[in-house]
Amino acid sequence: MSYKATIRVFVDADLPGEGTLQLGKDQSHYLTNVMRLKVGAALLVFNGMDGEWLAQVSCAEKRAVTLSLTERTKEQTPEPDLWLIFAPIKKARLDFIAQKATELGVSHLQPVYTRRTIVDRVKTERLHANAVEAAEQCERLTVPTTADPEKLETLLRKWPQDRKIMFCDETLSGEAAHTALSKSGVKNEREPWAIIIGPEGGFDDSERTKIREHPNTTVVALGPRVLRADTAAMAAISLWQSALGDW
Amino acid sequence: MSYKATIRVFVDADLPGEGTLQLGKDQSHYLTNVMRLKVGAALLVFNGMDGEWLAQVSCAEKRAVTLSLTERTKEQTPEPDLWLIFAPIKKARLDFIAQKATELGVSHLQPVYTRRTIVDRVKTERLHANAVEAAEQCERLTVPTTADPEKLETLLRKWPQDRKIMFCDETLSGEAAHTALSKSGVKNEREPWAIIIGPEGGFDDSERTKIREHPNTTVVALGPRVLRADTAAMAAISLWQSALGDW
Repeated sequence: MSYKATIRVFVDADLPGEGTLQLGKDQSHYLTNVMRLKVGAALLVFNGMDGEWLAQVSCAEKRAVTLSLTERTKEQTPEPDLWLIFAPIKKARLDFIAQKATELGVSHLQPVYTRRTIVDRVKTERLHANAVEAAEQCERLTVPTTADPEKLETLLRKWPQDRKIMFCDETLSGEAAHTALSKSGVKNEREPWAIIIGPEGGFDDSERTKIREHPNTTVVALGPRVLRADTAAMAAISLWQSALGDW
Repeated sequence: MSYKATIRVFVDADLPGEGTLQLGKDQSHYLTNVMRLKVGAALLVFNGMDGEWLAQVSCAEKRAVTLSLTERTKEQTPEPDLWLIFAPIKKARLDFIAQKATELGVSHLQPVYTRRTIVDRVKTERLHANAVEAAEQCERLTVPTTADPEKLETLLRKWPQDRKIMFCDETLSGEAAHTALSKSGVKNEREPWAIIIGPEGGFDDSERTKIREHPNTTVVALGPRVLRADTAAMAAISLWQSALGDW
């Protein structure tokens, strides 16, 4: 069999193996009205747990699409356990961070309020929607989880003991990424890590000290140029993935 | 003296040391009408060669602003010699590539036409304008040069003998970035390098073979997820900078 299924959809439902799957209202609407799929159309579906499946539309009602799962096209594989902790920034850049972090393989998006955070509302559903879209496009088998924003102090107070921190701050001289990360972690070991990126304008001194002095922290240099928060996030994820992740 | 000069402007003119500098029509318009600078306002200027200077507006005519250079605030320092060779993509993403590549420290932007390149016109002036804006914001002392698009074949035919190539292609299994790059180059040696990023959809097989078999090429892996062209460019620059550049 040779299918050409270019549409790839994240479904928030069990994939029970070969069999049928009834989609909810929103997703049914999306597939019939936006993507204009008809009965017989092929698509790929994934739910973050059961790999990727080739499916066919077996019923195309506008509010209740049914899919037949025909074949598993990819097995679920383990992915890096990497949080991205970032201060909210303007909407377009926030969309961008969620999309790019998903493409680059982050597992969890955690907005954080800092003393210099200017934007004060983050729509977690919007982060999630951006992450879903990016995951569908980049052929990931999972969608990063998203959390509501927290204050930096709260986050650090309840920090998980085994989760290491990669801290990139332009005012700190850190070691070159590969050296620093290779000392602190082991490639492909699926250790829990988090990257912390400051707000535009940086952390204030007391925040910086708190993160830097945390026993789990590795400080990494991102060079002499001033990076915007979104650029720094992309650079840091790339360096982590190459040193310790699955690149 | 303590100045608070947050405006930073690239000027396409000699900076003759302490003395005055007459700006052209466009830049005069920008400073008086857009930035609304008055006589006495402080700003930072750089031209890519003579470091960064603190300047004051000494005459604010709308078509002929004069600046007094008062103090050199940064010496010119050598920067990595890193070209980014990328296939043109949609306008917004092209702006994005020019901005981010500038922030991340690329020295030259070279669009390339490939067999699968879809967008067929690139405005080099627009690339340049994006690079200037990003350089002003990220406190670089230079602006990357930009070139008109060339065909991949032409570029490779006249390839400079001493310029190494970092090639990231999702269909090729490459070594982890740091290992591969450390074998091929020496950190901070200012060797000439180029990163080649394919179009959305990838190079075709004959193009891929040509680049891969070029004697100057190092193939680098960017992981199992499908990256968009702009994401791949940012990731590759970050990895190069950290392994061989000035990070």
